[in-house]
Amino acid sequence: MTTRRRLLAGGAVAGAGAVAAAVVAGGPDRAVPAAATPPDDTGTATVPFHGPRQSGITDEPPAHAAFVAFTLAAGTDRRALGRMLRLLSDDAARLTRGVPALGDTDATLAVLPARLTVTFGFGPGLYTSAGLPAPVADLPRFAIDRLERRWSGGDLLLQICADDPLTVAHTQRMLIKDARPFAAVRWVQQGFRRSPGVQAPGHTQRNVLGQLDGTANPRGAELEGAVWNADGSSTLVVRRIRAEIEKWDLLAVADKESATGRRLATGAPLSGQDEHDEPDFAALDPSGLPAMPDFSHVTRAHVTDPALKILRRPYNYDGVPDAGGRPDAGLIFAAYQRDLVRQFLPIQRRLAEKDLLNEWITPIGSAVFAVPPGCAEGGWIGEQVLA
Amino acid sequence: MTTRRRLLAGGAVAGAGAVAAAVVAGGPDRAVPAAATPPDDTGTATVPFHGPRQSGITDEPPAHAAFVAFTLAAGTDRRALGRMLRLLSDDAARLTRGVPALGDTDATLAVLPARLTVTFGFGPGLYTSAGLPAPVADLPRFAIDRLERRWSGGDLLLQICADDPLTVAHTQRMLIKDARPFAAVRWVQQGFRRSPGVQAPGHTQRNVLGQLDGTANPRGAELEGAVWNADGSSTLVVRRIRAEIEKWDLLAVADKESATGRRLATGAPLSGQDEHDEPDFAALDPSGLPAMPDFSHVTRAHVTDPALKILRRPYNYDGVPDAGGRPDAGLIFAAYQRDLVRQFLPIQRRLAEKDLLNEWITPIGSAVFAVPPGCAEGGWIGEQVLA
Repeated sequence: MTTRRRLLAGGAVAGAGAVAAAVVAGGPDRAVPAAATPPDDTGTATVPFHGPRQSGITDEPPAHAAFVAFTLAAGTDRRALGRMLRLLSDDAARLTRGVPALGDTDATLAVLPARLTVTFGFGPGLYTSAGLPAPVADLPRFAIDRLERRWSGGDLLLQICADDPLTVAHTQRMLIKDARPFAAVRWVQQGFRRSPGVQAPGHTQRNVLGQLDGTANPRGAELEGAVWNADGSSTLVVRRIRAEIEKWDLLAVADKESATGRRLATGAPLSGQDEHDEPDFAALDPSGLPAMPDFSHVTRAHVTDPALKILRRPYNYDGVPDAGGRPDAGLIFAAYQRDLVRQFLPIQRRLAEKDLLNEWITPIGSAVFAVPPGCAEGGWIGEQVLA
Repeated sequence: MTTRRRLLAGGAVAGAGAVAAAVVAGGPDRAVPAAATPPDDTGTATVPFHGPRQSGITDEPPAHAAFVAFTLAAGTDRRALGRMLRLLSDDAARLTRGVPALGDTDATLAVLPARLTVTFGFGPGLYTSAGLPAPVADLPRFAIDRLERRWSGGDLLLQICADDPLTVAHTQRMLIKDARPFAAVRWVQQGFRRSPGVQAPGHTQRNVLGQLDGTANPRGAELEGAVWNADGSSTLVVRRIRAEIEKWDLLAVADKESATGRRLATGAPLSGQDEHDEPDFAALDPSGLPAMPDFSHVTRAHVTDPALKILRRPYNYDGVPDAGGRPDAGLIFAAYQRDLVRQFLPIQRRLAEKDLLNEWITPIGSAVFAVPPGCAEGGWIGEQVLA
C-alpha cells in the first residue's frame, strides 16, 4: 500500500482522529481540478474491518455504495439477532480483506476488495425485537417531506462501500443471502461519487445539481468530537433527496448561487473568495443587501458550535428517466453524528422552515440508525448491545 | 496525456487497427490480478469524437455506460432528423472534450470528460422515418428469448461511456434534453465494468456470474476485419441478459466450468492451461470424454473464420433485489460487427439451439442498430445517410 492509502485504511478504525482528519480535509476545489494522482492499488487496497470503531464513516468515501435496509422476520429475537450478526460480521471481515465469505458461491468476485467497507446500523425496530430500549427514534415529519415507504425505515442497515461497482454488487449479494433466514430486504439505494483517480482524495465532490456538496464537513479535532461517542458508537441518518433538475435547469447561475449561498464554480460562500472561507453573515453585497441571503442553504444549515456539526457522507443516484426524459436523480444523503437529536434535528428543522433550496429538492425517503461500536477480531458488530 | 492514453484515444478513430488492437489484447488474466497501474489523468483524459469511424467501439471500454434508446416522435422526418443529429453531434463533440454543451445548464459537470464517448446507432425505424431502406432488421425471435418491450427496440441509440459515473449522468441528461423535441426515451440501461485502476487495460473482466467475459474477442488485424466496413460503418446488437444467479449459485464449480467450457479462476478452456489458449475440441479428458463438452458455451459460440468473429463490449448491470433478496442482475450484452446477418446471427442461433448456459441466463431485451461512420469537425453523425 502507498503511504496515503495506509493512512486512509488505518485512520478511521484505529481512532486516530488527527490522521483521519488529514485525509478528509484535502485541498481547495478548483473549477477544473488538476489531474489527481490515484493510488496504484485501487483493486487490492483494504480498509481494516476490525477496531473499536466501525469503518466506512470517517474514512474517505470510495466511489460506489449500496445502502441495504432490512425488515426483521417475525421471531428474529435477541438470540437470533446474535446469530445473524455473527454471520454477517464474519462475512464482512473476510470480504473486506479480499477473501471469499464462508458460504461464497462466486469466490472469483471476492478477490478485489477495492477499499471495501461494511458498516452496520441498527434501526429502532431491531431494539424492539431484542426487547431493549431503542437509542434512536424515527425523525418527526417535516413539512417539506414527501416520504415514500419504499425508501424509508428499516430495522437493520448495511452500508456497503467500495471503489469498484462489481465488488459492491458481489458483497451486497453475499450479505443479503446470509441475512435471508432472519430478514427481508426493505430497500436498496445504490449511489456513486467520482471514480478513483478523477479527483484527489479530500476534494469536495459535486452532486447532480452541480453543487459542491460537503464543504462544511467537520475536520481534525472537530470531526472526532462531532461523530464519535466515547464507546465508539455513532448515529446515522439516511435520506433520499430527489433533485428537481428540470426546475433547477430553468434558473440562471446567479439565482442558483443565491439559493445555495455559494458560487457554483468554486463553492466559495457569496461573502468570500475560496471554498473553505468561513461564511460572513454580516457581509453586504455592492447594493447594500446581505451577501449571504437569509433564505440560502448555507445560512440555514450553518452550525457555529463545532460539537454540533454533522459529517455528511453523501452519494449521488441517477435512475432511469421517464419517457418524457425527466431524470430520476438526486442524493442519498447520509450523515453521521454522535447525537441525532442535538446535532441533526436542529439543522433539519432550520432547513425545513426556510431554505430556498427546498424549491429544487424533495426528501422522498428517511431512516435513522444507531451505529454500534466496532469489534475486535473474533468479535461481532452488536456484541456490546446484544450479547 | 500518458503515452498509453494517447494510443487509446487515437487508435479507434484514426482507424489505426494495429494500435487499437494492441490496446485490446492485453495480458493474461490471473485469479488475483496484480495491482494495475492506472493513468494519472483519469478525469481529464479524452477520446477524440471526430474521425472517419465513431469512437466507443474498438477503444478500451471505460468503467461506466448508459445505453439510451429513443422512439422518434411522429413527424420527425429526414429533415428533422438532420437537425436533431447536428445538435446531438455538436453536444457530443463538446462534452467529449470536457467543454459544456451549447445549452448546458450545469456547466460545472462538463469539465471532467474521463474518456467520454458518445456512439450513435440507427434502428430500423429511423430509416423508415427518413423514407430510406433500412440496412438492419430486428432479430428473429429465439426460443430462449423472454423479451420485454421495455428493454427492446429503438429508433435511435446513444451509447454513452466514461470512466466516471457523474460524467455519464450529466451527458445523458444533456443529450436527452436536446433530443426531446424529436424523440421520447424508450429505455435506458446503465451498466458498469471494473473501476479505473482496478485492473490493467486489456484484461478480460468478470460478469456477475463470476465468468471472464470477452476472452474470444478478435484482436489486431482480425478486429479490423470483423468490425469495420470500408466506409467506417458497423452494426450493433444490444441484448439485456438476466442472470439467474440464485440457480447458478446452486452449482458446484466443476458444473459451472462444464456449462461454460472454461475454468472459472483463469478463464482457460477446459482443454488448455491459459485464458488465451485456443480451445481444442478434439481433446479428451482423463475419462476419455471430450474435454470441451458439446453443450458448453465456448463450444457453441466458437467461430473459426476470423472475419466472422464479433467484438463483445458488454457491461454488467445490478438493479435492486426484491424483498426475498433475489438479485436483478445480469449483462448488457453489446456486440459490434460489420454484418449482423453473417456474423452475429449464426452464433446466436447455435447458442439458442444448445448452450447449457441458457439454463442460467435469460435474454429479456433485444435491439439492433446500424452504426454510421464518424464525422469530421463541423460535420455530424449520419450526414452520409441523411444529408
